[in-house]
Amino acid sequence: MYYFRALVFIFFFASQVSMLYAQEKTSDEDAFFIKSIYQKALSQGACYQWLSDLSTQHGGRIAGSAQSAGAVEFVRQILDTLQLDSVWLQPCMVSSWERGEKEQVRIVNSPSRGTIDLGGLALGNTIGTGTAGLTAEVIEVQGLDELEELGRSKIEGKIVFFNRPMDPTQLRTFNAYGGAVDQRVYGAARAARFGAVGVLVRSLTTRLDDFPHTGVSVYEEGTPPIPSIAISTLDAELLSQLARKEKVQVFMRNTSSPRPDQPSFNVIGEIRGSEFPEEIILVGGHLDSWDVAGGAHDDGAGCVHAMEVLRILNQLNYRPKRTIRCVLFMNEENGLKGALKYAEVSNAKNEFHMAAIESDAGGFTPRGFSCTADESVFVEQFKKIIQRFSLMEPYGLYLSKGGGGADINPLKSQKGLLFGLRPDSQRYFDYHHAANDNIDAVNKRELELGAAAITGLLYLLDQYGL
Amino acid sequence: MYYFRALVFIFFFASQVSMLYAQEKTSDEDAFFIKSIYQKALSQGACYQWLSDLSTQHGGRIAGSAQSAGAVEFVRQILDTLQLDSVWLQPCMVSSWERGEKEQVRIVNSPSRGTIDLGGLALGNTIGTGTAGLTAEVIEVQGLDELEELGRSKIEGKIVFFNRPMDPTQLRTFNAYGGAVDQRVYGAARAARFGAVGVLVRSLTTRLDDFPHTGVSVYEEGTPPIPSIAISTLDAELLSQLARKEKVQVFMRNTSSPRPDQPSFNVIGEIRGSEFPEEIILVGGHLDSWDVAGGAHDDGAGCVHAMEVLRILNQLNYRPKRTIRCVLFMNEENGLKGALKYAEVSNAKNEFHMAAIESDAGGFTPRGFSCTADESVFVEQFKKIIQRFSLMEPYGLYLSKGGGGADINPLKSQKGLLFGLRPDSQRYFDYHHAANDNIDAVNKRELELGAAAITGLLYLLDQYGL
Repeated sequence: MYYFRALVFIFFFASQVSMLYAQEKTSDEDAFFIKSIYQKALSQGACYQWLSDLSTQHGGRIAGSAQSAGAVEFVRQILDTLQLDSVWLQPCMVSSWERGEKEQVRIVNSPSRGTIDLGGLALGNTIGTGTAGLTAEVIEVQGLDELEELGRSKIEGKIVFFNRPMDPTQLRTFNAYGGAVDQRVYGAARAARFGAVGVLVRSLTTRLDDFPHTGVSVYEEGTPPIPSIAISTLDAELLSQLARKEKVQVFMRNTSSPRPDQPSFNVIGEIRGSEFPEEIILVGGHLDSWDVAGGAHDDGAGCVHAMEVLRILNQLNYRPKRTIRCVLFMNEENGLKGALKYAEVSNAKNEFHMAAIESDAGGFTPRGFSCTADESVFVEQFKKIIQRFSLMEPYGLYLSKGGGGADINPLKSQKGLLFGLRPDSQRYFDYHHAANDNIDAVNKRELELGAAAITGLLYLLDQYGL
Repeated sequence: MYYFRALVFIFFFASQVSMLYAQEKTSDEDAFFIKSIYQKALSQGACYQWLSDLSTQHGGRIAGSAQSAGAVEFVRQILDTLQLDSVWLQPCMVSSWERGEKEQVRIVNSPSRGTIDLGGLALGNTIGTGTAGLTAEVIEVQGLDELEELGRSKIEGKIVFFNRPMDPTQLRTFNAYGGAVDQRVYGAARAARFGAVGVLVRSLTTRLDDFPHTGVSVYEEGTPPIPSIAISTLDAELLSQLARKEKVQVFMRNTSSPRPDQPSFNVIGEIRGSEFPEEIILVGGHLDSWDVAGGAHDDGAGCVHAMEVLRILNQLNYRPKRTIRCVLFMNEENGLKGALKYAEVSNAKNEFHMAAIESDAGGFTPRGFSCTADESVFVEQFKKIIQRFSLMEPYGLYLSKGGGGADINPLKSQKGLLFGLRPDSQRYFDYHHAANDNIDAVNKRELELGAAAITGLLYLLDQYGL
């Protein structure tokens, strides 16, 4: 009996040691490979040049536009050079909207300041004012709820001016955005309920500057649509100051209009897994942008990140165990139809996305990833992945709970893990949906670090699964 | 005996609970106060406007210059508004150097490309070429050691071109800088040993662009000084390509020259501690900059950080237990004489700097602090402070071992803790010592977050000491 015990003990001890050794050994190899990823990304990166070309040659690539068709072809050609197993275009019908002529917004004959031109940018999906434009008195509100308080008597026939700023004390600017974006998305629909004739919206940025920021707006059934235009934060301050002391009339004109859905594509490239090809790890961003700029941060950065991941793996001669799929989604900005089509097709094929990683928060220094999944599996999966993820901490990356991304969210029902790259968010809304979202707002190294971070996470997911 | 034991146990248990409770309570209050700091910094910050004024109205404030005298007065006036207990100027003699006329660097009559003008920026402390300039053949080297290998026969009479780039694979760009800066600092002195007549240095940045970056250089006794000029990374690439295939002659001209030491000042403001006034916590940056730009990141950011810390504490009606001293040092860039004078005076008065925090790494999103101290006390002190510091982790801040800063380093012998703010370093060397280090390179929120981070750390140090 003692002999047996001793044997058991020795066996137990030996197996612990070898397990420990195996684990350390593996961690060392993983750490080494992740280091190689960073070296490749920072010394021989391609993504900055790609982004420069995409944002300058195929800027304003709103879904359904000629520019977006050019962008589809551009990224397809890049994927074709990456020695993938397959590259294809996935057809989808996308929501479409056209801006029309340059917007006009003008304070008209104010008692104290006379006539002042403001800069304006029609919100996505908005109808036009008609070619004659419209003039009405402005009433400023701080949010949707205030409409209810004021009631039809104070709103009817007026232009409602939504002016609640983003909260600058939020550390993560996305939280500040989330706290103010309802005005832009639902402002026109809600104001119309009370008889407003038009809507002006303070741009969603914490900066005080002259750039109006566009973005999606939605109408509601049963309420007549009214036109809505974003104005810059500086113009919003000016208008607000004036409106507080006197009646202000504003002339607004835009000739934008929704169009019928258009045919377009998601662009997809794939390396087939060598051991578990049925387990898919998706890496992606959205290819469409707003029409007013290069869409460098939103979301050209995410697209070149995703392609760079595949290029780096190829350069390092890495043969993935699982299927790695790069998906560049169409129509995230004003319809999400590309993402919905992708999930529909994937579900119909009974595919399993073990993980999906989206980069749609800009090309800034990455600080980590947010992670989510279907409730039934999340707690257990998160526990496992957060241990592995400690290998990324030397790169200043941390894992937190939180959304993955608009394009990958429809895949949640497949019960894999969804990740969102979290770059430093301080500058994102300086450029978001505005005319200055161009390549000069992107720092090469910060962009490259994003690609390296995603590649590192993807490597760990591929090596160890869930 | 059992009774006694039970009593002891109860007493022990109760004291543990109350300690635990006290600690949690305190942490809650601390967390709340730190949150207030961030709210103040992000919603009512003054530092961005200060930096805008400092860098535009008092740019090029190299030590000993009229601009630096204007900057002294500017920050003194700000400190005067902050309701401190005292504000004073500490006289010091500073190293001085003057650039002279715009530099000329020209590839002369190269066989394949003819004559090409390059951009040049004389290195700090360098002598001039004489008004006639000098022309000589260029020999490219990758570092100081290569001089030895080549020997006098290959170097004598030539212009040595130091062209080892910063290593882009370093995650922290300061490490890459540390790996290349010896060429700039010692290049001229070493090349002169082998009879070189002049030195060109590749600019210290990971970017490929047209900005030459200046910075300090030093001569050695017994070797005749020769002139040295920085050229941009793009010009360095061009020159290198040419020099590899043919003999290249370069004309270089600069009329800069060292001057005698000049009188100047460190600018100091202080809130006297209410409980432990003899324990000083210093917060500072350096007021001088190079002469070629606004010195927005280097180190205007550090100066306004330090002043903002005091303003925030004042705004929050915080009465510090320990003496808080804001010190804006003069002459960090080319002599460190302000810092040396400050330490000399402090030591003569037997002062004790319990802690010193320097911000001299730019106004980018803070990632944490590095921390160091005299060896005899460091391990124990670091252990204590890292526990407290966990309160800063929700703000994305981490504490690491590493240097505090050039200006506070002379205080190490007082055996307090030295901290350096560590902002994200990716963009720092895009602007460092170059003509583009201006306010438009600074993001308001990123700057404000640095001030909040320092204020938070200072608060914890003030509350709990070492």
